[in-house]
Amino acid sequence: MINYPTGKPGKKTENTFLKNPNLAKSRLGTSFEQALNESNQYYLQHNIAIIHKKPTPVQVVKVDFPSRNKARIVEAYYKIPSTTDYNGIYRGKYIDFEAKSCNAGSFPFAHLFKHQIEHLHNVTNHGGIAFLLIEFINKQEVYLLTVDKLISCYEASLNEGRKSIPYAYFKEHGILIKPSYAPRIPYLTAVDQVFFAK
Amino acid sequence: MINYPTGKPGKKTENTFLKNPNLAKSRLGTSFEQALNESNQYYLQHNIAIIHKKPTPVQVVKVDFPSRNKARIVEAYYKIPSTTDYNGIYRGKYIDFEAKSCNAGSFPFAHLFKHQIEHLHNVTNHGGIAFLLIEFINKQEVYLLTVDKLISCYEASLNEGRKSIPYAYFKEHGILIKPSYAPRIPYLTAVDQVFFAK
Repeated sequence: MINYPTGKPGKKTENTFLKNPNLAKSRLGTSFEQALNESNQYYLQHNIAIIHKKPTPVQVVKVDFPSRNKARIVEAYYKIPSTTDYNGIYRGKYIDFEAKSCNAGSFPFAHLFKHQIEHLHNVTNHGGIAFLLIEFINKQEVYLLTVDKLISCYEASLNEGRKSIPYAYFKEHGILIKPSYAPRIPYLTAVDQVFFAK
Repeated sequence: MINYPTGKPGKKTENTFLKNPNLAKSRLGTSFEQALNESNQYYLQHNIAIIHKKPTPVQVVKVDFPSRNKARIVEAYYKIPSTTDYNGIYRGKYIDFEAKSCNAGSFPFAHLFKHQIEHLHNVTNHGGIAFLLIEFINKQEVYLLTVDKLISCYEASLNEGRKSIPYAYFKEHGILIKPSYAPRIPYLTAVDQVFFAK
């Protein structure tokens, strides 16, 4: 776990979430997730890439068997994911990324685990393609940020005590992904630009 | 499961099965899974490969919040996995496989979904490494079977009405993976042999 921001990363966010923080967060996350899943479906159907979201890890504690073939989980808890949400293969390369929505003017490091950043870094070292996809909900914009930029921000933040990456940084150093009809979030175009250019 | 130190795991295990086949099956699956997870941990720690098991997909229906920060899932069901259990990167290549235990003299196709076979085939077409790892519990042997062999068996089975791949086929066309101390199941050695030879 990266240092949780004890400060106040996004007043607005907190207001929206006050009524039911978990529900609100999950709904926001879900629509971006939904758009990404549809995009991955498009890429799969058009034989462009095989990229899937990993299931959310759950620790199952108790299972009931109401009938012989049916298992009903009656007690379980969400677990911390060991890696990132998405991975697969594109243009013969291993591809791996984490996708997050944020509702403020900056992206809080609290939305990532330290081991996820290390995982992405490790993927790069092994010759894979790794990055972050960040949706700024208020601006209706999605950016791709490469791992080297993520890490330099992260290290700078540790030194300077900053808790987030400002939107302006994404605007300058990220790749803006313009939404389209299909795929809804054509992030592989940005991947082409960053990882396959020249 | 493989290197049981007692020397006689067979009988004891089988007796246990009789009472509750489902429980036994799941436990067996888990110990193979456990050995694979430890092997992947070894490969990760030694910077050889980044391979993780995907979480088991669960459809969450109802969540309780006993306290502000704690979510308890109180109704959920196991879902059919959309892909395979394991994937990652090795020697710069995308790697993807399904691992199964079987307790009989042959491997039943019923242990695989058709879309999983198609997924593995698709991975191969995209330039990735894809295969099956099968543990024969009674024989305490693990085999790697490449996707092309799996598919030719599968297609033959459709024509001939066969429902499984005989052990003898694995012995002849698979790669036997000899257990070791660490990693417990050194399957990447078999991968080297099949996919990186010459």
